[in-house]
Amino acid sequence: MVDNNHQVKHQQTSPEWGPTAWTHLSTVRTQSPLIQCITNFVSMDLMANTLLSAGASPAMIHSLQEIPDFTPRAAALCVNVGTLTAEWLPAMRAAAEAAGRAGKPWVLDPVAAGVSGFRLEACRELVGMRPTVVRGNGSEILALANASVGPSKGVDSSHESTDAVEAAKSLAKSSGCIVAVSGAVDFVTDGQRVVGAQNGVAMMQKITATGCSVTALIAAFVAIDPLHAFEATATALSIFGIAGEIGMDMAKGPASLRVHLIDSLYGLDQDTVVRRVNIISFS
Amino acid sequence: MVDNNHQVKHQQTSPEWGPTAWTHLSTVRTQSPLIQCITNFVSMDLMANTLLSAGASPAMIHSLQEIPDFTPRAAALCVNVGTLTAEWLPAMRAAAEAAGRAGKPWVLDPVAAGVSGFRLEACRELVGMRPTVVRGNGSEILALANASVGPSKGVDSSHESTDAVEAAKSLAKSSGCIVAVSGAVDFVTDGQRVVGAQNGVAMMQKITATGCSVTALIAAFVAIDPLHAFEATATALSIFGIAGEIGMDMAKGPASLRVHLIDSLYGLDQDTVVRRVNIISFS
Amino acid sequence: MVDNNHQVKHQQTSPEWGPTAWTHLSTVRTQSPLIQCITNFVSMDLMANTLLSAGASPAMIHSLQEIPDFTPRAAALCVNVGTLTAEWLPAMRAAAEAAGRAGKPWVLDPVAAGVSGFRLEACRELVGMRPTVVRGNGSEILALANASVGPSKGVDSSHESTDAVEAAKSLAKSSGCIVAVSGAVDFVTDGQRVVGAQNGVAMMQKITATGCSVTALIAAFVAIDPLHAFEATATALSIFGIAGEIGMDMAKGPASLRVHLIDSLYGLDQDTVVRRVNIISFS
Repeated sequence: MVDNNHQVKHQQTSPEWGPTAWTHLSTVRTQSPLIQCITNFVSMDLMANTLLSAGASPAMIHSLQEIPDFTPRAAALCVNVGTLTAEWLPAMRAAAEAAGRAGKPWVLDPVAAGVSGFRLEACRELVGMRPTVVRGNGSEILALANASVGPSKGVDSSHESTDAVEAAKSLAKSSGCIVAVSGAVDFVTDGQRVVGAQNGVAMMQKITATGCSVTALIAAFVAIDPLHAFEATATALSIFGIAGEIGMDMAKGPASLRVHLIDSLYGLDQDTVVRRVNIISFS
Repeated sequence: MVDNNHQVKHQQTSPEWGPTAWTHLSTVRTQSPLIQCITNFVSMDLMANTLLSAGASPAMIHSLQEIPDFTPRAAALCVNVGTLTAEWLPAMRAAAEAAGRAGKPWVLDPVAAGVSGFRLEACRELVGMRPTVVRGNGSEILALANASVGPSKGVDSSHESTDAVEAAKSLAKSSGCIVAVSGAVDFVTDGQRVVGAQNGVAMMQKITATGCSVTALIAAFVAIDPLHAFEATATALSIFGIAGEIGMDMAKGPASLRVHLIDSLYGLDQDTVVRRVNIISFS
Repeated sequence: MVDNNHQVKHQQTSPEWGPTAWTHLSTVRTQSPLIQCITNFVSMDLMANTLLSAGASPAMIHSLQEIPDFTPRAAALCVNVGTLTAEWLPAMRAAAEAAGRAGKPWVLDPVAAGVSGFRLEACRELVGMRPTVVRGNGSEILALANASVGPSKGVDSSHESTDAVEAAKSLAKSSGCIVAVSGAVDFVTDGQRVVGAQNGVAMMQKITATGCSVTALIAAFVAIDPLHAFEATATALSIFGIAGEIGMDMAKGPASLRVHLIDSLYGLDQDTVVRRVNIISFS
């Protein structure tokens, strides 16, 4: 499934991923971490509902005036540049800085990083503020790693996630962040290790803001296990994918999949999670 | 169900609430009042769909330039500070003033009032402009009544509605507004009277913007019965709760509940409303 | 169905409309045109999901800084003034200009054009920049054609589409745009020809942003057949209506209709499209 040109080799599934994923999900449900989201207008509804269904407490708060009071009290921060304008950047910077100063994890979603010079520069500046995790699709991670405005296709990826694994490793090394690349397989790397979360269904890409929403879910998982951000990123991707798989059994198209995905995320039990988590290590 | 420490005592359900609720809903359907909503980005979709399903005509118009032309023509105004920034405040103020001057009812949703000094001050200023109704969760009403930035949990309440009944009465007295506190029971008070609307299901709190949306529904109900804002507030809360109860019979989780709630609100008939309304007076 | 006062006479359905509509839809699916949307906050979610379900690639990008880089790369542009403020107008102007300069089609949705002088002036200015297509409801097209702030009812139409056919023809002639008027019948005119797309169900008007979303779908259809914008506008309206009709068979109210509409749009096959397209020419 992974191109050998990328020097990643198949390994055995570790038996611990299932229980780890369950521990993460059940801890989110118990602790209900407060997740501040500075995100794009398209994603706000699905992102908030994803977090609520997982057991977290979302707060879409992006006012510059509130960040000093609010960000240090959040358990984690999610920054998403989807509908970026110059007016929103200062709040993103301020919140990232406040989270960093308070020792809180934060996650960056560099939506459409390569579609304009303005956006690429903004994303690179935010990566320079050292988010805990960066999650994007193949085109976004390639644009970030190569610092190039490319012939990318808006917000949808024109690259397979496998094409971006080396770029992700390189970005992780240079930035110090965990980097996740979403696609048919979701790869997660810290620059050394690479794992692939192989849950999910293709139709999830036909629902707007699923990528944004799983980034917020990563923030919630990292919030409750900040010392294992690499593992929390992989389990969040896997859990969201499992919810999509179960939802797909009932779906008749993208809109009913969206409904069933959220319902399934809400209803996931230990047995299902442990049995279905499909995370594979590459070396 | 209500803590005795709050000096509220159980009373009999008044037999008139069911017919009153039906009269309100059917009048909204007939008159289709135009409701101007200046609300947060997360809630716009569900709020507009809630109003449409109830028979009202929503208009999300927040431009300062349009308020002089538009607000006096609306039947009521709903102001919600969920994603407040300094840039949006002037339009909220101007619309509240225009509604007041035109003798139109307006309703305030002080989302997350206690999470920052900026937000608390803005909410208190808006309360000072004397909305017809203020609806919040327990934490929000406590923050407003006590004028304190508290250890609240973002936009979700960390207090039961019962904990905030006395604060609501006190806020109603000092402000001259009807005050509603949402929770397991939704309390409504004018400072003297207290009623509890006991419809609804817990899972509604797992859907983002249900609180915002019921505030808009209150605006629609008050629009068609402005001389009985207290009663209209209680019936709107009850009607929305009934739609949730019926939706819950079909729901498999929060996302399908959201769908079924709106469908049910659209389809409510007289018999169902009269039979299920559960509003109790306390003294 | 059409008032004779408007000098439109019933004619036979042309047998080519069904195959033309299918060609348009299947080409959108194959080419996946990138559609830039500068739209209102309420509609972003449904609009993006409509475009994705039809096979197009939506990008909600409205930053002034990104337009020079991005707009020329999009296949078409959709401008919607639903939640207009003075701050958003410059980006709308700049994107319209960039699309025009790059020879890309663009479509205007003059939401609530008649509710304020500010909005009417903005819409008229945008119409003056010569969009390929203008789509509105009866009240909006009348306001634009008559240049009058009327007693319109917010964003919902207080006129039947039939009332606005002559205004649409006149607006098409004076502006050089294709003009579409949505309603029980959706009329499309280039100032000479008039066709009526008779698909769709009434309940679609109880779902917020269906009008906005079909405008975006028109942009996608015009993107892949820019030399036949008149035909592409009619087929987009018809296809969206068919999705609503099929969705209605499963719907229990507006919220489930919304889900089934998007699912149905995603799943439409050639036979269904050819059989159900109902477009009639008037002379």
